[in-house]
Amino acid sequence: MAVRLFKPDHYHHTLGSHPPVLTIQPGDTVITTCVDARGFDEHDQPVTPRGNPMTGPFFIEGAEPGDTLVIKLEHLRPNRRRGWSGVLLAPNVVEPTDAGRLAQAGGYFVWDWEVDAKAGTARLNHPASPLHGLVLELEPMLGCFGVAPEGNQAISTATSGPHGGNMDYRGFREGVTVYFPVFVPGALFFLGDGHALQGDGEICGTGIEVSMEVRFSVDLIKGQKIEWPRGENEEYIFTVGNARPLDQCVQHATSEMLRWLEQRGLDTTQASLLMGQGVRYDLGNVFDPAYTMVCKMPKRLLERLLGLQTS
Amino acid sequence: MAVRLFKPDHYHHTLGSHPPVLTIQPGDTVITTCVDARGFDEHDQPVTPRGNPMTGPFFIEGAEPGDTLVIKLEHLRPNRRRGWSGVLLAPNVVEPTDAGRLAQAGGYFVWDWEVDAKAGTARLNHPASPLHGLVLELEPMLGCFGVAPEGNQAISTATSGPHGGNMDYRGFREGVTVYFPVFVPGALFFLGDGHALQGDGEICGTGIEVSMEVRFSVDLIKGQKIEWPRGENEEYIFTVGNARPLDQCVQHATSEMLRWLEQRGLDTTQASLLMGQGVRYDLGNVFDPAYTMVCKMPKRLLERLLGLQTS
Amino acid sequence: MAVRLFKPDHYHHTLGSHPPVLTIQPGDTVITTCVDARGFDEHDQPVTPRGNPMTGPFFIEGAEPGDTLVIKLEHLRPNRRRGWSGVLLAPNVVEPTDAGRLAQAGGYFVWDWEVDAKAGTARLNHPASPLHGLVLELEPMLGCFGVAPEGNQAISTATSGPHGGNMDYRGFREGVTVYFPVFVPGALFFLGDGHALQGDGEICGTGIEVSMEVRFSVDLIKGQKIEWPRGENEEYIFTVGNARPLDQCVQHATSEMLRWLEQRGLDTTQASLLMGQGVRYDLGNVFDPAYTMVCKMPKRLLERLLGLQTS
Amino acid sequence: MAVRLFKPDHYHHTLGSHPPVLTIQPGDTVITTCVDARGFDEHDQPVTPRGNPMTGPFFIEGAEPGDTLVIKLEHLRPNRRRGWSGVLLAPNVVEPTDAGRLAQAGGYFVWDWEVDAKAGTARLNHPASPLHGLVLELEPMLGCFGVAPEGNQAISTATSGPHGGNMDYRGFREGVTVYFPVFVPGALFFLGDGHALQGDGEICGTGIEVSMEVRFSVDLIKGQKIEWPRGENEEYIFTVGNARPLDQCVQHATSEMLRWLEQRGLDTTQASLLMGQGVRYDLGNVFDPAYTMVCKMPKRLLERLLGLQTS
Repeated sequence: MAVRLFKPDHYHHTLGSHPPVLTIQPGDTVITTCVDARGFDEHDQPVTPRGNPMTGPFFIEGAEPGDTLVIKLEHLRPNRRRGWSGVLLAPNVVEPTDAGRLAQAGGYFVWDWEVDAKAGTARLNHPASPLHGLVLELEPMLGCFGVAPEGNQAISTATSGPHGGNMDYRGFREGVTVYFPVFVPGALFFLGDGHALQGDGEICGTGIEVSMEVRFSVDLIKGQKIEWPRGENEEYIFTVGNARPLDQCVQHATSEMLRWLEQRGLDTTQASLLMGQGVRYDLGNVFDPAYTMVCKMPKRLLERLLGLQTS
Repeated sequence: MAVRLFKPDHYHHTLGSHPPVLTIQPGDTVITTCVDARGFDEHDQPVTPRGNPMTGPFFIEGAEPGDTLVIKLEHLRPNRRRGWSGVLLAPNVVEPTDAGRLAQAGGYFVWDWEVDAKAGTARLNHPASPLHGLVLELEPMLGCFGVAPEGNQAISTATSGPHGGNMDYRGFREGVTVYFPVFVPGALFFLGDGHALQGDGEICGTGIEVSMEVRFSVDLIKGQKIEWPRGENEEYIFTVGNARPLDQCVQHATSEMLRWLEQRGLDTTQASLLMGQGVRYDLGNVFDPAYTMVCKMPKRLLERLLGLQTS
Repeated sequence: MAVRLFKPDHYHHTLGSHPPVLTIQPGDTVITTCVDARGFDEHDQPVTPRGNPMTGPFFIEGAEPGDTLVIKLEHLRPNRRRGWSGVLLAPNVVEPTDAGRLAQAGGYFVWDWEVDAKAGTARLNHPASPLHGLVLELEPMLGCFGVAPEGNQAISTATSGPHGGNMDYRGFREGVTVYFPVFVPGALFFLGDGHALQGDGEICGTGIEVSMEVRFSVDLIKGQKIEWPRGENEEYIFTVGNARPLDQCVQHATSEMLRWLEQRGLDTTQASLLMGQGVRYDLGNVFDPAYTMVCKMPKRLLERLLGLQTS
Repeated sequence: MAVRLFKPDHYHHTLGSHPPVLTIQPGDTVITTCVDARGFDEHDQPVTPRGNPMTGPFFIEGAEPGDTLVIKLEHLRPNRRRGWSGVLLAPNVVEPTDAGRLAQAGGYFVWDWEVDAKAGTARLNHPASPLHGLVLELEPMLGCFGVAPEGNQAISTATSGPHGGNMDYRGFREGVTVYFPVFVPGALFFLGDGHALQGDGEICGTGIEVSMEVRFSVDLIKGQKIEWPRGENEEYIFTVGNARPLDQCVQHATSEMLRWLEQRGLDTTQASLLMGQGVRYDLGNVFDPAYTMVCKMPKRLLERLLGLQTS
């Protein structure tokens, strides 16, 4: 149950079987930092190339393929004042006939924001724009995190899969617990791509990108195999499907929720009926090569149900 | 500003240029009823074939192609006690390899619910199931409503499009205002497919289906052309994309929101930036031939922005 | 077995239950004409609005829902000299980032071709272009044809479905036999949208569009229900899936071929194995709201197989 | 211009930056072998785990990121007699409602074929089946080949991307020339997954899988950057899009063909017009995580065009 401080001195642009930077025990807590999506650190200095550089990997002792890694995001906080975001809608999230006028509006570029972690705000810092001074409330989150993927692959931090990766889901914020399948010994956990806040879908290609200080705890569920990332917050349990098109994300997330409820003792019919009337879906990334949909079930409903069953 | 009572004596299974049942004025309020998705009325009697039978069409005086029809759902309430729902997940919302075991679990069938509109609850009425007695809270909504489509088409109430139709979005509940493009003189508004409540996606193929009493008011925005349904509730303005795959729903809903914000005076860059960090998406139907995604923008953010602009 | 001459004097822009223009018997042959996609006739005069105007519908005596309509395209020939085609790739068939430069190249416009049915050629007639004078060989085909759809729908000739419609498949040329499901009494057969030739996918939004003289014969298979259009030429039997995305077209066409082979007496395993190693797919329309994929099986392979079975 | 013999003694299950097995020069020819998709060699012995094990990688001297690697498949020939194939249609290529009965027909299993490379035939060797003895003609091809991907990724041989990989396209047969983008120094070329023959789409999850002897020559186009694999045979030049859904494959392949024609000197309008009326599409894999579509242009048409231009 140690608290481990880790200051990164190099970063990775793929999630893969890279040499671990730290070995930790289930139950440990890690305090560390992430650079922003372009490799700028807390001093706003470039320390690694762009493209969602990852802190890690952390080797979790005892983790074996077929286990489930448990990550609780205990603390997420921007650790510098400059944030930045893409300004124009990505051409793939609008009707094809609209992509042309987006190109005419200037294509892809970014503007700065003043991030005040203490006040909990981001203020647009672009005097040339009528929106200069616009203030939004922070909702710090991690855009990209996960484990080394199956089959000795090394997969770009631009995309996502069963191992996690660049899911850009607003629900990955302070207080959430996330479950990843373990594919390699030690699981090899990576994290990065901090967003001070983000709209659903990351439809301008970025959130408000910023470096971040992070505290997370790890745990391990031995012998429990899951197929896709799962998570849990105060209100919901949820499952994550990463694929394209979104229809397929829905399929993965829905099947994973079905499996989860069945693992909790419901039969296929019970789980289906309950999902049919109680399910909620959230949208993660629709900008990257793989998109993300999240399937959520209210804990209140499941508790009520389990109550029913035991009576 | 009349209040019109209308008791239907026949129903339609397409949205098309059918003879109007009632001519109403912008500003009028209509009180009427809808049968359930299988054509059973408030006495639980079959009065028309199954398949989302529609009440209507209502002819709105003065509505011309290129206008926008405004429908406010003022009151939605189940008007009988028996509801019913599909029990098993639809084969298209799970991984293809899961479709087999759903088939083995019995395929498509429905169970009954006891709907108590006064208490605001639905209670599963299927003694053979361990879930018998499960109580869920009502969130009455309309699954299918809209106007006669473009180009003299008549489109099945099983699907959806720019004219609305079977969108199965939980947000179409009491208090919402919905905007439809007008394609034919009089707009020809239809409504039906009441759900006592429903999970996102209608992933078991139904909500808790029930007949409904409905009060709605109509208004007209002359000369304002919209491409897709829009809506508004206390917190959000929203746009609706109906298509397949979901990626394309996202494109339509996002482009329609962009157009809306531009119509309100933002330029492409301003609207994009704001959407990028402020947008939310909801999932409507993923069961029918066309799926539905909803793009939402918080009114609070837009008001703040308009404040910025005027200062 | 009559030969019927029919000269259209009005056209339809939906496939639906419109009043028949002619009642014909199974076994009859019809000689008629179609205007081009913009409603210009053999004299290059506009006689009806644009949008794939249809000749018909023809009422086939004895056709009832659940039967199969058999159409043989016996003769297809452009009946005027001016053809025209879209010039630029549609924004939805290129990468979203390419849509911008297509818009800059001028967006959607059309150029003329000189169609010489006797010589079997189309010559680009656009002196301002370096391609002026380019000669292509004719492969006359029908872009849009089919029957009145299910459930009293009337569906735009811009799209397609189980009833056929705007499939834009190069295989719908002289000599092909096409099978349509019958959804309404008399089947109500429509045809139009002649292409002097066309690339796969109709990726510039048109073939070389021209009015056409057409001779087709009709027949009826009583009591044989099919789900999607089927066809047959000298080399292949084929099935047609119309939907979006293309993945779903593949699913419909593949399932329909499986059903066809099973109806011919193969079991699921035999049909699967044979399809797995023998199947070919062609691409129809990828421009319209619904796309088209065609699943083909070589007759030679099936005959060989049937030989095996009888030995 | 050396001829290099290479006998593999280990294999890879990802395309990535693995240590080269042989360094070769542009102009060289390599004669080597591949095991089958399950890792069985020419003696029908298992020599490596299943999953499209790759021979290679070959380091091509002088290849740098931004160049194009040219591979000509000069000779492809099964080098043992036992082949095998999946028997049932994959659940993702049929309508979701059909997946259930495929599961009931027995799910995924394989049967053997007797491959006679000399006679050019494969004969089904499964006495329990009525199809036992069915004879198909060989069309040997490579299912999976390509180069190390961008950004130090290592990507499973189960899928595909801009680097090639598991494309399962029937056009990758003897005589074809294939162009790959170079992402890493030396390009690092891999090959494997021989199919004695295969239907389009690999819809039963396999072709007739067999080990193979292969002769290929390599060349290099310095400083020519391509985005997706390209190819060339006697009749066509072609481009390959690997993604999901198929709509996106179409977009990549079409954009890549547009770029190719523009690189040959056509402007956007000329290239579009020519593609619009001359293009053909083929279907590669629709079984794996990424699907494949191929966009083809007839050489005859391009030559004619270039003739026009020079006159």
